[in-house]
Amino acid sequence: MSNKVKTVLAVDLGGTKLLIGEVTKNGEILNKKKFFSDVTSQERALNSIKEAIVTYWNNGCIGEVIAIGISAVGRINIQDATWYEINPKISEPINLRTELKDITKLPIFAANDVNCATIAEKILGDGKNVDDFIYINFGTGIAAGIVQGKKLLFGSTYNSGEVGHMVVDYDSSTQCICGRYGCVEPLASGLGISERAKELIDKYPSTNLKEDQNGRIGLPELIKAYEDNDPIAQTVLNRATQAAACLIMNLVYTTDPKKVILGGGMLNGGWFIKHIKEYLNDEAMRFVTDGLEVTNLNPNEIALKGAAMLALKEGKV
Amino acid sequence: MSNKVKTVLAVDLGGTKLLIGEVTKNGEILNKKKFFSDVTSQERALNSIKEAIVTYWNNGCIGEVIAIGISAVGRINIQDATWYEINPKISEPINLRTELKDITKLPIFAANDVNCATIAEKILGDGKNVDDFIYINFGTGIAAGIVQGKKLLFGSTYNSGEVGHMVVDYDSSTQCICGRYGCVEPLASGLGISERAKELIDKYPSTNLKEDQNGRIGLPELIKAYEDNDPIAQTVLNRATQAAACLIMNLVYTTDPKKVILGGGMLNGGWFIKHIKEYLNDEAMRFVTDGLEVTNLNPNEIALKGAAMLALKEGKV
Repeated sequence: MSNKVKTVLAVDLGGTKLLIGEVTKNGEILNKKKFFSDVTSQERALNSIKEAIVTYWNNGCIGEVIAIGISAVGRINIQDATWYEINPKISEPINLRTELKDITKLPIFAANDVNCATIAEKILGDGKNVDDFIYINFGTGIAAGIVQGKKLLFGSTYNSGEVGHMVVDYDSSTQCICGRYGCVEPLASGLGISERAKELIDKYPSTNLKEDQNGRIGLPELIKAYEDNDPIAQTVLNRATQAAACLIMNLVYTTDPKKVILGGGMLNGGWFIKHIKEYLNDEAMRFVTDGLEVTNLNPNEIALKGAAMLALKEGKV
Repeated sequence: MSNKVKTVLAVDLGGTKLLIGEVTKNGEILNKKKFFSDVTSQERALNSIKEAIVTYWNNGCIGEVIAIGISAVGRINIQDATWYEINPKISEPINLRTELKDITKLPIFAANDVNCATIAEKILGDGKNVDDFIYINFGTGIAAGIVQGKKLLFGSTYNSGEVGHMVVDYDSSTQCICGRYGCVEPLASGLGISERAKELIDKYPSTNLKEDQNGRIGLPELIKAYEDNDPIAQTVLNRATQAAACLIMNLVYTTDPKKVILGGGMLNGGWFIKHIKEYLNDEAMRFVTDGLEVTNLNPNEIALKGAAMLALKEGKV
């Protein structure tokens, strides 16, 4: 019998990077390695995952690896580890369990990135002591995980929690990639605020805001401009925080959580939550007795840890 | 041993009437009786329930009554039958199990009216063969029941599904009783469309619309006026159907149901659903593989039947 600590080899495939690491049952990351990821197709994304696992595995693991847990962007069936799609418009179902089993012969579990983050909250984070909570990720996009009666909800097709496509402003002229107008994602996500700011640049020649080398205007730049009374930043961020608050309260009325936990890049530094709170209505929040807070887990590692916890619980989350 | 059919004595307390009846396990109503209800306070409402049960019980029951099931407006804990409140601003918790036990000595179960309607759908209606569905009631107010993995969700304080307070139009000048602006309830509920139409009467002196003896402008009158090109009716009903469609799609993205079932007085006659469908987006509805439909259960009896089913399942729904 091995004296080594039992670990899960966890993979977190994001839009631009892939993180792989060994995680203990307490959520400690013993070692990790970062790769670039290619998610321009599911096949290429699968190759990114395969390469990462082969490389890590062949270099030798620290602990006794007992399972593999995978977090990935897109829609994933946690029962059988079928990864339906990254982009809803191109569905090419891939069974990750079948595709990856020969590398290590270990049991394989997989879930969508926001579901994995919610699992991490539930087992390691601030969702540990409540039966009912929601985790909302405000990052490049927006999505949520809903936990009721200690169970994470997946919906009938593993598509629940796609709350970035909740319309909060149906008279808006801002169209979302989903086709509807006034969704919260193009108003309050990282990509959304960048796009909204860029749309306004021609109207306000006095602004100092400009795109970075990736064609984006990031939250830190917008916050700085906001504090300097830049009209674009004020318009975009006031709308973003209002839309985010509206989404939170809409979800509270729908799911009645005891606690609301926010995560994702938009929450870095505390500015976004502080301004969201200005728009919260006491009546709407009255049953959220354990409050609204930002995750205490490291946003760069939350999905990796969640993928590991999913594998340790054998998908029973 | 009694040869009588086993029944539940079910009570449905609404805003203006109370229905009591004996329901079999197949959902057949053997006998029923209607009373006026007084819901101006919880105590008066409790007296309405007591009187109805005493009267019915003393007149003799048809079957062998094995339990009592109560559906009532407001927030109710189905575990212990505590009725927290009718109006969220005045909470006077009453334990219905304790208060009513001496009348019949039978076990007592209780849930909120929309939860009862959802239970009826789940056991007797179109939710019978799906694991995940949502039932949305468009009546005087708007609320929903969410069933996932065959379980009805209640939230942390029996307040889930209060989706009438989902903001769909945050720039709206229409304020809801909850304090927020642009909630779907004041735009798309029976009371809401009446209020919206009344607000416009002074602006359109040419309209034939007028309040009925209760100070309301009902959906049938508005539909008739709409078809006669009345500008008030067109403004109000186009907005109502758009807001209703928006709510449905927002809930679909949040909970990922296989089927959406609509009920409540607004659905009578088929006009409302036909016009809602004009606003539905294929992308948003693509996973609702079992479709959007109006309940097949009689809207006047759905909560009564649900209360009976709740009692038969001993609250395990």
